[in-house]
Amino acid sequence: MKPNRRVFILGGAHTTYMGRGRPEFVHRRHPDYGTRTNPGLEDHLGEAVHGALTATGVDAGEIDRGVVSNFLAECFCRQGHLGSMFAAVDPAFDGKPFLRVEPACASGSAAVISCVEAMQAGVDVTLAVGVEVETNRPGKEGVDHMALAAHWDKQRDFSQFLFPFLFGRRAKAYKEAFGATDEALARVVAKAYANASRNPQALNQSLDVSLEQAMTVDDHNYVFLEDEALRPHMKLHDCTAFTDGASAVILATEDGLKRLGKSPADCTELTGYGWSVRALGAETDPTRMSNMADAAAEAYGHAAIDPGDIDVVELHDCFSISELQQVEALGLADAGGAPALMKDGATELGGRVPVNTGGDLLGFGHPIGATGVKQILEIHRQLAGKAGAYQLSSSPQVGVCANLGGDDRTGIVTVQRAPAS
Amino acid sequence: MKPNRRVFILGGAHTTYMGRGRPEFVHRRHPDYGTRTNPGLEDHLGEAVHGALTATGVDAGEIDRGVVSNFLAECFCRQGHLGSMFAAVDPAFDGKPFLRVEPACASGSAAVISCVEAMQAGVDVTLAVGVEVETNRPGKEGVDHMALAAHWDKQRDFSQFLFPFLFGRRAKAYKEAFGATDEALARVVAKAYANASRNPQALNQSLDVSLEQAMTVDDHNYVFLEDEALRPHMKLHDCTAFTDGASAVILATEDGLKRLGKSPADCTELTGYGWSVRALGAETDPTRMSNMADAAAEAYGHAAIDPGDIDVVELHDCFSISELQQVEALGLADAGGAPALMKDGATELGGRVPVNTGGDLLGFGHPIGATGVKQILEIHRQLAGKAGAYQLSSSPQVGVCANLGGDDRTGIVTVQRAPAS
Repeated sequence: MKPNRRVFILGGAHTTYMGRGRPEFVHRRHPDYGTRTNPGLEDHLGEAVHGALTATGVDAGEIDRGVVSNFLAECFCRQGHLGSMFAAVDPAFDGKPFLRVEPACASGSAAVISCVEAMQAGVDVTLAVGVEVETNRPGKEGVDHMALAAHWDKQRDFSQFLFPFLFGRRAKAYKEAFGATDEALARVVAKAYANASRNPQALNQSLDVSLEQAMTVDDHNYVFLEDEALRPHMKLHDCTAFTDGASAVILATEDGLKRLGKSPADCTELTGYGWSVRALGAETDPTRMSNMADAAAEAYGHAAIDPGDIDVVELHDCFSISELQQVEALGLADAGGAPALMKDGATELGGRVPVNTGGDLLGFGHPIGATGVKQILEIHRQLAGKAGAYQLSSSPQVGVCANLGGDDRTGIVTVQRAPAS
Repeated sequence: MKPNRRVFILGGAHTTYMGRGRPEFVHRRHPDYGTRTNPGLEDHLGEAVHGALTATGVDAGEIDRGVVSNFLAECFCRQGHLGSMFAAVDPAFDGKPFLRVEPACASGSAAVISCVEAMQAGVDVTLAVGVEVETNRPGKEGVDHMALAAHWDKQRDFSQFLFPFLFGRRAKAYKEAFGATDEALARVVAKAYANASRNPQALNQSLDVSLEQAMTVDDHNYVFLEDEALRPHMKLHDCTAFTDGASAVILATEDGLKRLGKSPADCTELTGYGWSVRALGAETDPTRMSNMADAAAEAYGHAAIDPGDIDVVELHDCFSISELQQVEALGLADAGGAPALMKDGATELGGRVPVNTGGDLLGFGHPIGATGVKQILEIHRQLAGKAGAYQLSSSPQVGVCANLGGDDRTGIVTVQRAPAS
């Protein structure tokens, strides 16, 4: 879709993405265990929302509509009705329509699009916040909850580790179809950790994983799938880790910007989006992400861009193979061409089309409901020159986000343009 | 909000609402136990969607956008990502943007509004479906899941039966503030069961509860709250029962109707809506529903109606006290005036403003995510003359739905007008 009423992104905020990668994260063997606890769902939600209001200089009372994206609060936190919890963040939100959306891992982009469509219906200033807390339950239980993004009755028994299994299948099929190597996957991992090292809010800011380490099976990077054929194709570092966090962005129409006393020159513009959903539980082609490719084609059409116009990308590297297949789904490389593109350095910070500049899911972390909002804010920051230590020097003009739900079942692609200079 | 692009409701379908009230519902002491199972989440979803397509004569391929409302599928059914499950209902849905929304018990109206706002953004034919399966877990576990609509950390310990406790508090406070009697509450229950008896899809079609039975504490209508002060104010029949079911409606713009070869004369029009959300966990005034009143005032303003214009109402009688307080929140009676209005017969099938003509939550059943969609379809049917055995003979022209989330935390009010004659 292309917004008929133009939609501008003013900015936003992330909380520090928390989990085992952060030195301050409290766990059983942490010196602070028993004296301090990690921030909970409501803490992350409140911090991201207040952070976004502060970062943009917008008063809470100016927000006409809020949408919160979250996947699994019922399971991890015993909490539903998150729209109403969002309304509790600030007294000025009282009486506004606040909503929760859930298309699994693609929830964040859906929250932003719900805001965009509310703005087409007449409201002028909106706030999208994504939040997830996942580290508070044992890993085995957490893995079980994640499987709710697939078709439980048809697919749960594939493996104890359902999503690593589904994406391990993708990695194996991709290697066999295109002759890709472990090195190609390891390059995704090494880039993610390298980019995250410049990002003070990243889960894995202080962890280094070199290309060689990402290729090597050892005690730090072990294989764990039961299926012997898939086992070599999914190592620990190929997977995102359980993460807590929230990200929020504020959007406005031209009328909204006037009301706020803001100029389009301070904002990126969301110029188009594509959204494609396919049947849960149906078999997919493991060599490619055709549903995401459809979402990208729709978004590009509405935003009137070609893949060659794209200067910076956030894509959904829930597993390392996802990045290769989404580089192709987004049209940045032909089928099987992603490894060569990456080997040339094109997707690195100084490259032609930098991908996941803040470390994205593998490096920055993957608090599921937050991820899509996080991606859109990351692209906003790069296009607006606000990305701090990992700001691109190339003055990117067009940025794209690809947000994935399940095994290529929901795909949402958004396009942003830099502020008019 | 008032839709800038006019929005028409073509019709839809309910599944039979299943649970202990239905003779065909399989449970441990049912003769079919072990040989037959009750329909599951995907069964209800598919049946309602196909039913809506059949009822309206719309091809699945004409649907541009789908939104599914559901509260607790993760907990009861171990299933998330329901937008993608919705896309699995028909191959023609492949590639369309399908989304799940969750504002607890108000989810159904939020699904319809998400459709309405997508239509303001440019799509022309949409489908909203609400679904919930709640009978498949032990009651004690079910009650615990329902508590997720409140603030878990702050409120869960109030009572094992959190929502009966919260609404028992409302019943007690209302009686004390306005001198209302047990008979006033019992009248809500008796009306719900009487209306449901004409509704072949109602959970409690074959159960009779007279005014006297609803007033009497006995083995069929026991009290169960631990709190001695609240205990007399919440009997079993004052509460909705665990229900499985789904309801779906199809909506279109004027352009959509043209594409479908349909006339506005066959449709009701959604002329305005109000949506208000207040902070989860905050203390509420137990004598009234001020948040729902705000939603109603907003909806009436946009639809340019007064309470006196309303001919038929669906409101959210999750507990009997809810009906009294919402009759007042909707402006049909002054504070404390609902019992007198009901005693006069004004809200009965032949009355001036019939309320919950098909039995609504207490009689028809309350599959939570479905309820808001169900209400909107019930009003459509009454205004379009399609309500079958409980069709009003008064040719109602204006109908209103009130859909509640939590303890007056989310309120959504929609206004429909009858087809132009």
